Amino acid sequence: MRHSQMLIPTMKEDPADAQVVSHRLMLRAGMIKRVAAGIYSYLPLGLRVLQKVSQIVREEMNSVGGQEILMPMAQPAELWKKSGRWSEYGPELLRLKDRKQADFCLGPTHEEVVTELMSDHIKSYRQLPQTVYQIQTKFRDETRPRFGLMRAREFIMKDAYSFDVDQAGAICSYEKMYQAYWRIFQRCGLRFKAVEADTGSIGGNRSHEFQVLADTGEDLIANCDHCGYAANIELANVFVATDSSHTEELPYEKVLTPSQKTCVEVADFLGVSIDKTVKTVLFMADDKPIMALCRGDHEINESKLKKALHANWARLMTDEEARLLVGPTGFLGPVGLNPEIRIVVDRVLSKMPSLITGANQQDYHLAHVVCNRDFPAEFLDLHSATLGDICGQCQVSPFVFHRGIEVGHIFYLGTKYSEPMHACYLDEKGCEKTIEMGCYGIGIGRTAAAAIEQNHDAKGIVWPLALAPFQVSLVRLGQDEEVVKTADQLYRTMLENNIEVLYDDRDERPGVKFADHDLIGCPVRVTVGGRSLKEGLIEVKRRSSDEVSRVALDSVITYIAEQLAPTKV
Amino acid sequence: MRHSQMLIPTMKEDPADAQVVSHRLMLRAGMIKRVAAGIYSYLPLGLRVLQKVSQIVREEMNSVGGQEILMPMAQPAELWKKSGRWSEYGPELLRLKDRKQADFCLGPTHEEVVTELMSDHIKSYRQLPQTVYQIQTKFRDETRPRFGLMRAREFIMKDAYSFDVDQAGAICSYEKMYQAYWRIFQRCGLRFKAVEADTGSIGGNRSHEFQVLADTGEDLIANCDHCGYAANIELANVFVATDSSHTEELPYEKVLTPSQKTCVEVADFLGVSIDKTVKTVLFMADDKPIMALCRGDHEINESKLKKALHANWARLMTDEEARLLVGPTGFLGPVGLNPEIRIVVDRVLSKMPSLITGANQQDYHLAHVVCNRDFPAEFLDLHSATLGDICGQCQVSPFVFHRGIEVGHIFYLGTKYSEPMHACYLDEKGCEKTIEMGCYGIGIGRTAAAAIEQNHDAKGIVWPLALAPFQVSLVRLGQDEEVVKTADQLYRTMLENNIEVLYDDRDERPGVKFADHDLIGCPVRVTVGGRSLKEGLIEVKRRSSDEVSRVALDSVITYIAEQLAPTKV
Repeated sequence: MRHSQMLIPTMKEDPADAQVVSHRLMLRAGMIKRVAAGIYSYLPLGLRVLQKVSQIVREEMNSVGGQEILMPMAQPAELWKKSGRWSEYGPELLRLKDRKQADFCLGPTHEEVVTELMSDHIKSYRQLPQTVYQIQTKFRDETRPRFGLMRAREFIMKDAYSFDVDQAGAICSYEKMYQAYWRIFQRCGLRFKAVEADTGSIGGNRSHEFQVLADTGEDLIANCDHCGYAANIELANVFVATDSSHTEELPYEKVLTPSQKTCVEVADFLGVSIDKTVKTVLFMADDKPIMALCRGDHEINESKLKKALHANWARLMTDEEARLLVGPTGFLGPVGLNPEIRIVVDRVLSKMPSLITGANQQDYHLAHVVCNRDFPAEFLDLHSATLGDICGQCQVSPFVFHRGIEVGHIFYLGTKYSEPMHACYLDEKGCEKTIEMGCYGIGIGRTAAAAIEQNHDAKGIVWPLALAPFQVSLVRLGQDEEVVKTADQLYRTMLENNIEVLYDDRDERPGVKFADHDLIGCPVRVTVGGRSLKEGLIEVKRRSSDEVSRVALDSVITYIAEQLAPTKV
Repeated sequence: MRHSQMLIPTMKEDPADAQVVSHRLMLRAGMIKRVAAGIYSYLPLGLRVLQKVSQIVREEMNSVGGQEILMPMAQPAELWKKSGRWSEYGPELLRLKDRKQADFCLGPTHEEVVTELMSDHIKSYRQLPQTVYQIQTKFRDETRPRFGLMRAREFIMKDAYSFDVDQAGAICSYEKMYQAYWRIFQRCGLRFKAVEADTGSIGGNRSHEFQVLADTGEDLIANCDHCGYAANIELANVFVATDSSHTEELPYEKVLTPSQKTCVEVADFLGVSIDKTVKTVLFMADDKPIMALCRGDHEINESKLKKALHANWARLMTDEEARLLVGPTGFLGPVGLNPEIRIVVDRVLSKMPSLITGANQQDYHLAHVVCNRDFPAEFLDLHSATLGDICGQCQVSPFVFHRGIEVGHIFYLGTKYSEPMHACYLDEKGCEKTIEMGCYGIGIGRTAAAAIEQNHDAKGIVWPLALAPFQVSLVRLGQDEEVVKTADQLYRTMLENNIEVLYDDRDERPGVKFADHDLIGCPVRVTVGGRSLKEGLIEVKRRSSDEVSRVALDSVITYIAEQLAPTKV
């Protein structure tokens, strides 16, 4: 394409409202344009990138037997009432009424529509397994849409759904999808990790996130270099051998700690380090009260707590609930607690000879508290993985931590949707069974944005070859007749050789052209300028390097083709 | 693809609620599934067809310099208020509120978004012309969604928008688009006509519809075989030489016609043929009252009236308005009429020596009324083209009429949107000018449906090659080892030869397989059966013919390739 005829509204200055790199650079490179909060138009360069991501995703979905379909964005409420999510889903579900006052929502995800579709179609075990997918526009009415395509309200997602006869089949579909996801992000040219993840509101009990590694990522990943285990810190399995062999002879003792409520305050006041104190947090899990204890410098993690308790849900107790149950908080502790409250203790505490805990009395703490002597302690893995923690998988290496951006998420759903929506089949014996499901998402726009978060420099984007809007920027310097003739000819030859080229044929200064090229970030820049051309030479430079090669005109196409070999860029 | 592993829920019986052929056959062939009224999921076969239409459209849009973009479906009300359409557009515009109670609509079309986009970007005449397009999901909340993809609420449309410095440029963009549309529907393998059309609510004053010819079409097209002129009957230019040379000596005369109001009643009562009577209709056009007269067997056409009067709008007068202006209706006529009402007369009436009109008096008509003797008559072309009318373009041949389905519509918009939305540029002299626009739509789903309306038989769809979900159905009869081996091998060879094949490997009776093949309508059927195979033969049959060829196994791929040559199918 000729730059002069394209809609590429690049900007020299950073837009005021863009906080993250990818948002800033996609706006500056003229790839997207804001229409409303969290709602964008994709301009030619941006759409090309999304189409490249989509095509890779499509090919890999097809390779595991995925069938492409397209479901509607407007979904009738009745389907969501069947699954129960019409009332469960918060205000992120944009609800609307049509002209006949019938309730609809804009689809944030398509479990209901696809389950209904397949349940109508599937009668027999002979029709299973099946996997369908779509690449489709979704809507989630985020409270604070921000970060451009990273957290938009209207966005493009690939969502796939698998249907199997039983759990073994569903796990097999899940594994195939896991492999396909690996290939997708590998082909996109991204550095990423597949990590164990929480199942969240989608439900089910097996889940992986695919995280693109980038310093600007919102998620924290614990990774073990020894065994390769990786998980969101909210879920990472931490190794702590439970060990209650430490002896503490002294009985517990009440100490005055006037107005000292937090662990930091207590540690300071008593002159001990914070890892000698204990943090006490009250939760509700499946409607039952829970007191959870962890080391003063650690954090109790709700996801881990829920998993450890095998609970359907867990959340912080509200102040109101706590007040009714135990009176004023601030000096809570496990000793002498209302026995209706279950006490769970992070395993790390089992290594401490004694604890300093609240005394359940205003302005007092207890020292020399011993687990299972002074209160019944149930040891579980409860704290978010943190520096120094040992991998729970291999029990050998300490975790290394990375920041990541979640670009894909796969879930084993079981019968969470097929059960309430009665999606069944007849097995070999003619018995009715419930279909086992999985669901699998990839944020198409977010993958493009994550690629930028991972691959950029001060001048702009440094696209991986597979996602670049064009492989080559052909920059023509000046309007000299010979330069124009040569550049035009090179442009045509590149097109003939199926090289995707953005030809900067504008009547602009070299500085402007080079700056735009660096901003847009195509992997290879080819420059036709008067001075080099007099020597029969063309300049070729890779976006990711500062090195400029001067190549003879008659061998430049071959040279460029080499640069575009997948191993090179 | 293997049929056994695909989601193709074919039906033997006609679904109850599908009235038109394409709706019925797309449901029966398992191409679409209803989710709500006018809202469908596209299943694998259906989506493949839509993708084929889309790809042809995309290539032809690119070939005329169109740049692909993607605009959002959720559009902020403020843009629609700028253009004025927020209040003008009826309830087909689905309005909604986000969680912050901000007004949005689901885009039925994107003039506002694209005008805002381009107006922000375009500063100088040097950036023009530009054409952008998208293939995108739209929503129109139709009162009576029906006919499957022919009149859906959520549907896929290609919409393109051109931006030019002046009218000449805009007309040039329009002409390019016209040519691209020709190529698109030609490549789709459809019989169609480009016809002059009304600009309707989109505005502007130059417009063509692309109509796929089918007996089931809702539109009527007048076509001249002599000069090639074609137009919607609402607009077709009819040739009538105005001729007031006929003389009528008798003065007009009041005749008693008790309770005879309609032309048919009056003709019967007076014992004359209906084409001797006159139909009188009251309109409002640009807030002024109009009385329009035409022959009793003709129809006054609003679009023609509006065009003839150079009015911005024209509509039937309401009963209330008529009552206030002229009293009770039923015996209205032009003689002695309130002079504030303008009288326009279809040119056909100029050939009649005298007219029978209402007397403006209950139960009376006037006979021997002469135009421009008894009332001032302004002769215009006002009636919908009808049988016997002569083409107004060449003034030679009578029109031939076709039924058609509108699949594309192109409009020259002028400054209808750029003016209120202030989309301007600076010309060579630095003067601010308003951008001239055009807009161009193609219904992707409707094109697929129209292809079916045009190409089907009692057994199912007969796809044009370019739109077929697969080029070939490979039907395996029985489970005989040799048959399975041969069919599997043929399947692989076809894939290697880039032949798109649907391999019916199901364990079903031949009758079921052939019926499904005929229903789905792939252009070529290849059958591997035990009996023929013993003779080393494979059966090949085109969907559009009853002839079955028996071809030697080793030359069957070549034979199929020949069948798939574009000229063949």
